[in-house]
Amino acid sequence: MDTRTGLPVVGMVGGGQLARMTHQAAIALGQSLKVLAATETDGAALVAADTVVGSHTDLDALLAFARGCDVVTFDHEHVPTEHIRELVEAGAVVRPGAVALTHAQDKRVMRERLVACGIPVPRWAPVRTPADIAAFAEVGSGWPLVVKAQRGGYDGRGVWMVTGPDEAPAGLDLIVEERVALRRELAAVVARSPFGQVAAYPVVETVQRDGICVEVLAPAPGLPDDRAVQAQDLAIRIATELDVIGLLAVELFDTGTALIVNELAMRPHNSAHWTIDGARTSQFEQHLRAVLDYPMGDTSLTAPVVVMANVLGAEPSGRDMSLDERLHHMFASEPAVKVHLYGKQVRPGRKIGHVTALGDDLEKVRASAARAARWLSMGGEP
Amino acid sequence: MDTRTGLPVVGMVGGGQLARMTHQAAIALGQSLKVLAATETDGAALVAADTVVGSHTDLDALLAFARGCDVVTFDHEHVPTEHIRELVEAGAVVRPGAVALTHAQDKRVMRERLVACGIPVPRWAPVRTPADIAAFAEVGSGWPLVVKAQRGGYDGRGVWMVTGPDEAPAGLDLIVEERVALRRELAAVVARSPFGQVAAYPVVETVQRDGICVEVLAPAPGLPDDRAVQAQDLAIRIATELDVIGLLAVELFDTGTALIVNELAMRPHNSAHWTIDGARTSQFEQHLRAVLDYPMGDTSLTAPVVVMANVLGAEPSGRDMSLDERLHHMFASEPAVKVHLYGKQVRPGRKIGHVTALGDDLEKVRASAARAARWLSMGGEP
Repeated sequence: MDTRTGLPVVGMVGGGQLARMTHQAAIALGQSLKVLAATETDGAALVAADTVVGSHTDLDALLAFARGCDVVTFDHEHVPTEHIRELVEAGAVVRPGAVALTHAQDKRVMRERLVACGIPVPRWAPVRTPADIAAFAEVGSGWPLVVKAQRGGYDGRGVWMVTGPDEAPAGLDLIVEERVALRRELAAVVARSPFGQVAAYPVVETVQRDGICVEVLAPAPGLPDDRAVQAQDLAIRIATELDVIGLLAVELFDTGTALIVNELAMRPHNSAHWTIDGARTSQFEQHLRAVLDYPMGDTSLTAPVVVMANVLGAEPSGRDMSLDERLHHMFASEPAVKVHLYGKQVRPGRKIGHVTALGDDLEKVRASAARAARWLSMGGEP
Repeated sequence: MDTRTGLPVVGMVGGGQLARMTHQAAIALGQSLKVLAATETDGAALVAADTVVGSHTDLDALLAFARGCDVVTFDHEHVPTEHIRELVEAGAVVRPGAVALTHAQDKRVMRERLVACGIPVPRWAPVRTPADIAAFAEVGSGWPLVVKAQRGGYDGRGVWMVTGPDEAPAGLDLIVEERVALRRELAAVVARSPFGQVAAYPVVETVQRDGICVEVLAPAPGLPDDRAVQAQDLAIRIATELDVIGLLAVELFDTGTALIVNELAMRPHNSAHWTIDGARTSQFEQHLRAVLDYPMGDTSLTAPVVVMANVLGAEPSGRDMSLDERLHHMFASEPAVKVHLYGKQVRPGRKIGHVTALGDDLEKVRASAARAARWLSMGGEP
């Protein structure tokens, strides 16, 4: 409890853009997010009044941080499970909890649990050696296969598309999966509170390039209502079975005839960044409401079509405008597009922000978001 | 320029809720608002990473504050004009400028200037003594009259409805005005950039109680299009004539047959708080865009009807819920209403936040906003 305001204090471990945008949402709720950031130039550390610099792998730092918080939650999945248990032992309220989080930290644990729940996943196996992978290929549909690090991957890191057993990384705990013949990728995002209330956002299509999400279309174009409900139902079942508190993002493969679960994340997620401008309640506010056991907010769209495009740092071209100049041009070009910059130094391929466009016509809205993202990324160059 | 991000630094003098919500908007633009707050528990000081505690009447504090800013702007009108001139002398970029701001600081200067521009204002006169006021009553429509402090008033303070000459305060520079037979009050809010671009928000109706705005209806119900354009045109003319940079809120009396200018404010304004959720570009983002000479954002409504209700601290009843409990109940009652709390201690009559409701049906939306505001103010008691 913040004695200055009479309102609760949520602490977020990790100071990236998710914490940055959660702080924005916290302000409206009368709060100020407490942030444990790795460095003082982390996106959230630049903007939040109550930032502590420390490592998420340092138990003492975590324990000290948690003492000032009514609830501790996360900007990423990298806090060791044993540390989370120690936090709870010490009396901290941690949401989501250690058991639930394991399913977002460890792909083998996640796959095993989803299979046990009867939830559709790709054919998969835990592996360690090239021979294991070759054996998996032999009994299935052959190559290529998808190999993933059991722990620690994100944004395409820790994932390899392999065409033979020797291409997989050595010395890691891995899982191997069949390559699903997918039509597209979807995401179903829900929030669940300790009370058990679950709120589901409209199901979206996520467009990936090089393993990184570049665009999100809300709602997923042409998705039949019954298929959308099926996706929301899967996410609600997973949130409930795994006792997730806070946000759960379920990444799905849409094969055209079935939905298959790809990944889980238990925090605000890139696939729901569109909700800041495109839903009545942003995912960041919803995550705070969930971990504080407030009733959930309305998840309705604010326009018939919402498109989010990520802004990725471009390779320097030698005649680059500053980000500030690019922002000027983008605003002039697209006065109705909303921008969200993360306070990051620009590096090629790095997510430095996102934009949201809204309207009635998917192609127009999508083109507007793409133009805005290109202005911010590359100064409008083709 | 913030060397960590390559983006500009806006400094706001004053750390109240306007600075708090401007900081929220700054975060999306990749910035972090720099705040000069009177105390470390000011609403903005609780949430902004870069807060300096100091007085807006202390020239040295202002000069030191301005050195870290690309642009200096204001959360209130109380910075002495001579201090603003000193800031500019010292090389600071101050927006709006000292000359423009005088019209928001001094009601006599404002009235004289508007009259010179041919803009309709109530019949008025500068006065100092009860005899001056009596003389004004004699040549006009008699009593009651409105007496205002020439400088320093806000939220009903510094304004008196007087029924005789002896009711006016003594020893102040005052203006006296006829009491306009108004049908309702409107507000026309625009933002203007140094480039000269002006963006106008839809004209709203403001509902006052005891001199404090309690409710804003956007767009103003039943306002004919030509009258709305007339109000926007008045605001654009005033912004241009007075060389306002940033936001200008023009409070208007609607007599049913004419629009008469009541007050001006040159900063984000309560009459446009609805824009956070109800317009594509919030007034706070728009103010930042204007003072930074970025192109203006889209001012369209996000729903056909938007209602903002202020949350005022209630008198203690002896069986009060905490603000946190009230927020729980409000969320359960109104899942689609957006809340904005200012991080303030609750005191009777004090604005501690506002709520926004959106929809198609004015009466339903208005009732929803009123219920939500009442929950937050008094825990749902009638």
